[in-house]
Amino acid sequence: MRFLSDNSAAVCPEIMEAIAAANVATEKAYDGDDWSLRLDGVFSEFFGKECRVFAVGSGTAANALCLSLVTPPFGAVLCHREAHIHVDECGAPEFFTGGAKLILCEGEDAKLTSETVDAGLASMRGDFHQVQVRAISLTQATEYGCVYTPDEVAAATSGARWRGMRVHMDGARFANALVHLGCHPGDVTWRAGVDLMSFGAIKNGGMGAEAIVVFDPQLAYELPFRRKRAGQTPSKGRFRAAELIAYIETGVWERNARAANAGAARLAKAAGARLTHPVQANELFVNIGDAGEALRAKGFSFYDWGAAGSGEARFVVSWDSAPADIEALAAALEAL
Amino acid sequence: MRFLSDNSAAVCPEIMEAIAAANVATEKAYDGDDWSLRLDGVFSEFFGKECRVFAVGSGTAANALCLSLVTPPFGAVLCHREAHIHVDECGAPEFFTGGAKLILCEGEDAKLTSETVDAGLASMRGDFHQVQVRAISLTQATEYGCVYTPDEVAAATSGARWRGMRVHMDGARFANALVHLGCHPGDVTWRAGVDLMSFGAIKNGGMGAEAIVVFDPQLAYELPFRRKRAGQTPSKGRFRAAELIAYIETGVWERNARAANAGAARLAKAAGARLTHPVQANELFVNIGDAGEALRAKGFSFYDWGAAGSGEARFVVSWDSAPADIEALAAALEAL
Amino acid sequence: MRFLSDNSAAVCPEIMEAIAAANVATEKAYDGDDWSLRLDGVFSEFFGKECRVFAVGSGTAANALCLSLVTPPFGAVLCHREAHIHVDECGAPEFFTGGAKLILCEGEDAKLTSETVDAGLASMRGDFHQVQVRAISLTQATEYGCVYTPDEVAAATSGARWRGMRVHMDGARFANALVHLGCHPGDVTWRAGVDLMSFGAIKNGGMGAEAIVVFDPQLAYELPFRRKRAGQTPSKGRFRAAELIAYIETGVWERNARAANAGAARLAKAAGARLTHPVQANELFVNIGDAGEALRAKGFSFYDWGAAGSGEARFVVSWDSAPADIEALAAALEAL
Amino acid sequence: MRFLSDNSAAVCPEIMEAIAAANVATEKAYDGDDWSLRLDGVFSEFFGKECRVFAVGSGTAANALCLSLVTPPFGAVLCHREAHIHVDECGAPEFFTGGAKLILCEGEDAKLTSETVDAGLASMRGDFHQVQVRAISLTQATEYGCVYTPDEVAAATSGARWRGMRVHMDGARFANALVHLGCHPGDVTWRAGVDLMSFGAIKNGGMGAEAIVVFDPQLAYELPFRRKRAGQTPSKGRFRAAELIAYIETGVWERNARAANAGAARLAKAAGARLTHPVQANELFVNIGDAGEALRAKGFSFYDWGAAGSGEARFVVSWDSAPADIEALAAALEAL
Repeated sequence: MRFLSDNSAAVCPEIMEAIAAANVATEKAYDGDDWSLRLDGVFSEFFGKECRVFAVGSGTAANALCLSLVTPPFGAVLCHREAHIHVDECGAPEFFTGGAKLILCEGEDAKLTSETVDAGLASMRGDFHQVQVRAISLTQATEYGCVYTPDEVAAATSGARWRGMRVHMDGARFANALVHLGCHPGDVTWRAGVDLMSFGAIKNGGMGAEAIVVFDPQLAYELPFRRKRAGQTPSKGRFRAAELIAYIETGVWERNARAANAGAARLAKAAGARLTHPVQANELFVNIGDAGEALRAKGFSFYDWGAAGSGEARFVVSWDSAPADIEALAAALEAL
Repeated sequence: MRFLSDNSAAVCPEIMEAIAAANVATEKAYDGDDWSLRLDGVFSEFFGKECRVFAVGSGTAANALCLSLVTPPFGAVLCHREAHIHVDECGAPEFFTGGAKLILCEGEDAKLTSETVDAGLASMRGDFHQVQVRAISLTQATEYGCVYTPDEVAAATSGARWRGMRVHMDGARFANALVHLGCHPGDVTWRAGVDLMSFGAIKNGGMGAEAIVVFDPQLAYELPFRRKRAGQTPSKGRFRAAELIAYIETGVWERNARAANAGAARLAKAAGARLTHPVQANELFVNIGDAGEALRAKGFSFYDWGAAGSGEARFVVSWDSAPADIEALAAALEAL
Repeated sequence: MRFLSDNSAAVCPEIMEAIAAANVATEKAYDGDDWSLRLDGVFSEFFGKECRVFAVGSGTAANALCLSLVTPPFGAVLCHREAHIHVDECGAPEFFTGGAKLILCEGEDAKLTSETVDAGLASMRGDFHQVQVRAISLTQATEYGCVYTPDEVAAATSGARWRGMRVHMDGARFANALVHLGCHPGDVTWRAGVDLMSFGAIKNGGMGAEAIVVFDPQLAYELPFRRKRAGQTPSKGRFRAAELIAYIETGVWERNARAANAGAARLAKAAGARLTHPVQANELFVNIGDAGEALRAKGFSFYDWGAAGSGEARFVVSWDSAPADIEALAAALEAL
Repeated sequence: MRFLSDNSAAVCPEIMEAIAAANVATEKAYDGDDWSLRLDGVFSEFFGKECRVFAVGSGTAANALCLSLVTPPFGAVLCHREAHIHVDECGAPEFFTGGAKLILCEGEDAKLTSETVDAGLASMRGDFHQVQVRAISLTQATEYGCVYTPDEVAAATSGARWRGMRVHMDGARFANALVHLGCHPGDVTWRAGVDLMSFGAIKNGGMGAEAIVVFDPQLAYELPFRRKRAGQTPSKGRFRAAELIAYIETGVWERNARAANAGAARLAKAAGARLTHPVQANELFVNIGDAGEALRAKGFSFYDWGAAGSGEARFVVSWDSAPADIEALAAALEAL
């Protein structure tokens, strides 16, 4: 009964079929095929705005390439202390930007707010002795499974935007956030001030493609070069494009995310007061005290979280988590 | 009738099946799954030597990561003037190494020889005003579709090895070379002095995985970090591993390469004296004079090569090129 | 009456004379001259250990080059949250290392302790998702004008050394620390576990040369290349070497630092309970409340420190601060 | 009798005096002092155009910082095969640009021409598989001691400028070129299409300061950050600024260069038909056959040049070369 990560879930049938359907010889390799050429259009319709879209092979690549477009080597990116780009990408943002810094801010539930962003900005100076903050990055849903409303995105980024900084969204679990919000995809992205985003698909039923979505076409100019240079432009690019097109057009982004969120909601009810963060997407953080060993003995896999001995655990529900597994875990959590 | 590139070929059925078979939920994401854990063993058996193997998403990534292991930022890599790493990777080696240089050597058929390598080495000094050559990279089969024998690999690299430099092989079309040679894979790699290689599969019936094969385990220590940092460690790594395992274990590496090479040999016979390089793998370089327009009018796609107006053209045969297409092209070349 | 920074002090006569004496034509440029060739010997004698020494043009260059020797691009350096390398070098460590991270630790008086270092190390993991801490950097005297004893250096770095990490000391004000300690230079550096250091001279009566001192010769191998590549190997290197030799051999390092420290001690007595940190070198941090405007009106220049409105101010005494200025400031501080 | 390099010459008295005169305590460190604040004005008057000027500590730093302003990491700089930035800077351009490439062109006397530049540009493609040429760099006087006329500068760069590329001049021996030309400094720089330059002073009687001169202020925006980050912003910046101001205002740039050029002209007359390049500045390249040993036995120091056994030697005349030494060498060359 796997609750370690949605990264270990299977690929959903619709995406497997799309990959199989793309397995024909094409005239042109790299991005010259029919699938790759459709990416911009499909995402532009999804977001209600003309955008440029590039498939890459991991969320880390998407994040780091995005940041390299908006942050010079002497620049900095403001993000939450718990942001995946800081904690879990082995310095990819520093590598792709040529050595920019991440400036870490606080915030409940791994969310930035206008107050914590202002405090972060106030800690930096504009003289040449310091790197210059040029971008802000926020994660939707956050690393604690919480979701920014459109107003919260706009508010958290307003101080940065007012200073001419660019806004990046790490949308590794964007579909889960969108299902929670029930809003139009544009409402919580470009209409709320987001300039470019990492659009996740792999965790939510995809196989190996994430999308970089650039809402301001001028920002995209450097991307084909930086992407190729990073080894993120595969010669059979049509397979990645086909995944992403299927993800959007068949609606699995929504179906899969809804299933995962529902499972998490069921577990949240069971965990009750033991929750350490609101459950708004497909992750739960629960104070299980010293019950870790017992839960694992019952067959549940999950990560301990926080400081050693904190008693906190993370459970992630996947689009394909078995209902019986969820019920079993719910029962076990209720019994704590 | 497509002869532009083997990059636009289809994926062979065995690999599609392996991908489908890997579509089960796993306990661990990233490289913790059963397929990823088998990679070292499968390749170690193939090469007859214990090696460390890492799947990545493109040949450019494989090359650049390999070079970053053996070349410090103040270092240099000696390669042929026509090497893919210099001509067609948008500076990926420079990016991944932190700004090392490529030192360009001459050589017929895009092959390095001990003479041209010695000349390249002799052009560099050991003082601190210059970057220091630390590695040599050669392409098998070469960018002109020619194949190094084991002795040629050993000879071309001996001067560099004697100086303690490391040897990298760009094996984007390694299977085609191996089929031509008919030797054991180890004979033309580690037994001939190769320390690490980019092992191509995508052009020869694969979908999206190439392998980095490190024959000296000590060299591999940094790779998990550099790979993650480059966004080349996908969360569902099992799909890439499954591709590579199937590529080796089902024997399609050989079957597919043999088919492509045979098609090229058929065309070589037709092109006769118009060939500008020996045909030893699956690429032909032909002097077609001013017949380019006429050939395209008949439905053949291919690239012009060399300087504008040179009359040279490149034809690439894929593992799945239709026999009828090959015969049609052979007839057209004979008619020139 | 300047108390802004020791960086704006004059150059002491002994160093001016040494520069003038070096103004003869030499046989060899760069580092081939008689002064440069003596650097290793002069510093080896000073520190009581054979070391390799390289002159560079700024403290930032010294720090960043040092860190690039001990930190791979996927590495990290552990340092204090207030460390100059983090706060005031515009990302030089990130640039020179190829994108490593700085991991920030806490500590009173900008001092690392074994507890805060352990906490920093405990916050990091050894898996490939994170950068790997490979070095620790501490500043002597610290950014708050405090001095580590030899035991404190050894204690703060022991956990890192036990893990095989390297120890860097930013000695921008090393002479001031040494005068305070009264110990042998080796006691608080290599004997306490320091592998390499930035040895400051400019703030303490020098003109334009700082030294990189490498106590482990093996670490120095890459430095001539990295230094040249960074534009830190001037063609008339003899002038920088001459400065550093004079700094050591004439004893001005001690005389100048003693004068500056004595001035600071005089002011510390005047500031009394208003001091926010112990005064052990040539800097004072004083809570002046709302007296900033009045002090400036009297002709004193200094920096406000800490958060806006905190009432904290920094006063730096230089080797050439006029006694009358110091007395005037002492009186003003006493009158607060 | 030293003819190895002008880098080993002495510093001229006017510059020594200026350095001594700058040895007063100042209010502000770094670039806030009175000398640094005058740099823009002094050079703007010299060049007849408003420009931004930054002192750095070496020609390598000047070149690499300049190139980093006009070349993105995925970019390329077109230069001569013998350019100092390629041959003798240990990869500094690659380091500072984040891994851009140098594209090497041919040309007599190390001079680029419109033909060789066009050939270089024609060798590159605009697609994302290749780095994109964004700048051209030419050396004045060239690495073979030859001088571009204003028309030659304009012609060699016109193709690049027409394509929107930027033009950098490596002016390590700019004064020698200017004296040869007798034209206004603006004629052979910004009026001929140069956007920014490395303005040399060290070889021509300076001590440790070279200037970056940016003729287009918009280009200069990033420079204070990139310079600090490179450790090229010394805290006592006034000394470097004072050197450069004296170099211009006292006219030693001209006097010193005139002396060195005259010495070289005298030697050129002596070398006659043995010259391998025209002598237009202060360097001679002479075919001395097998006379190297004999010349050295007479007390002359110089570098062998070109391939081993070529019989070519380089002699450099400095501003302070003794007339007797020059006459002695002239006699020796005539006697060959």
